[in-house]
Amino acid sequence: MSSGRPATHCKKHLLLKGLQLFNQQGYHNTRLQQLLQCCGVPKGTFYNFFSSKDGFVLAIIENYFQLEAERLSITAELPQASHFQKIYKYWEIQIETYGTETDRIATLIANLSAEMPLGSTKLRLAILKTRADIIQVITEDMQICQQEGSIRSDVTPRALAEFIWCGWQGALLSVRLCKNTAPLQEFLKTLRLLEQAPGS
Amino acid sequence: MSSGRPATHCKKHLLLKGLQLFNQQGYHNTRLQQLLQCCGVPKGTFYNFFSSKDGFVLAIIENYFQLEAERLSITAELPQASHFQKIYKYWEIQIETYGTETDRIATLIANLSAEMPLGSTKLRLAILKTRADIIQVITEDMQICQQEGSIRSDVTPRALAEFIWCGWQGALLSVRLCKNTAPLQEFLKTLRLLEQAPGS
Repeated sequence: MSSGRPATHCKKHLLLKGLQLFNQQGYHNTRLQQLLQCCGVPKGTFYNFFSSKDGFVLAIIENYFQLEAERLSITAELPQASHFQKIYKYWEIQIETYGTETDRIATLIANLSAEMPLGSTKLRLAILKTRADIIQVITEDMQICQQEGSIRSDVTPRALAEFIWCGWQGALLSVRLCKNTAPLQEFLKTLRLLEQAPGS
Repeated sequence: MSSGRPATHCKKHLLLKGLQLFNQQGYHNTRLQQLLQCCGVPKGTFYNFFSSKDGFVLAIIENYFQLEAERLSITAELPQASHFQKIYKYWEIQIETYGTETDRIATLIANLSAEMPLGSTKLRLAILKTRADIIQVITEDMQICQQEGSIRSDVTPRALAEFIWCGWQGALLSVRLCKNTAPLQEFLKTLRLLEQAPGS
């Protein structure tokens, strides 16, 4: 191609805009036509990249999970802080940048979990796999936190990770309902329950 | 009316079946036609009771919140147990009967929170009000638990209630994804973190 936008640019733009639209409007309320108009991309180009709306969502999940996993491991800042403090800071930044910088894959998963038709087995399994991958990352973090003694150790790292994931997902639903990030902030504040309890 | 089913029967049947279908399939995937077929009710009868699909959902929320609030306050059993143990038992029963006895309003709220179009302000406000009402019920329970000393008191009752609500909502999303109640069971198990911490 010697002129126009390169194909990779188009594809990336569609993936990013798709994530944003699905998160803002929900999966079913987002029409393909609207996505194409927002991106200035003809229908034929879309179908060069993706087989269907479901295939498009799968591509978004694959693309953004990698990005999110990288973010999760960015804990090099705050060299003096405990691992729990670093993760806590990462969660705070996620809330601060909610809806601005990028819309997160966690929101997409929350929406899709609720909206998904019963028949979409391939899509369900892909979401389930991403859920498991994210929980695995959090589990490893909880393991480190317990080893350094910054959080209570009377619950397994995996149980803690599942607990955090559920709470975060539920808080995201409340954010959508309340139209502000207060539920996420409240959730994060109360998550300090995980730290060593007073008197222990 | 001297013959056929009384109107109140029809209306109740529509509300119950509607709750079940919305919870199983999601709001957008449930067609009015399917509901009418399941209930053997003609379209005209539906519109005698409800103005629209949104109006129908509002009626379901109003109807079942009352029912759920009554359930929440049924803690007369286990006379020797602490208030926290009674509530915990109630939550366990909710999980045991998930998807069988009735589908709960909490699932409907989780699904609607994710699916709701941005424009449906009346519906959003109704869901928000029900969310606030349920959290208020849990807040009062947490207050009693803290007074009797069965749960930790370094977090406010309202913050605890919001935390429990978010976790439960997120676990419901995971249940939909996993197609079993393990995420709810895991969440409930870890919720024992609320009890007095070891060493305190």
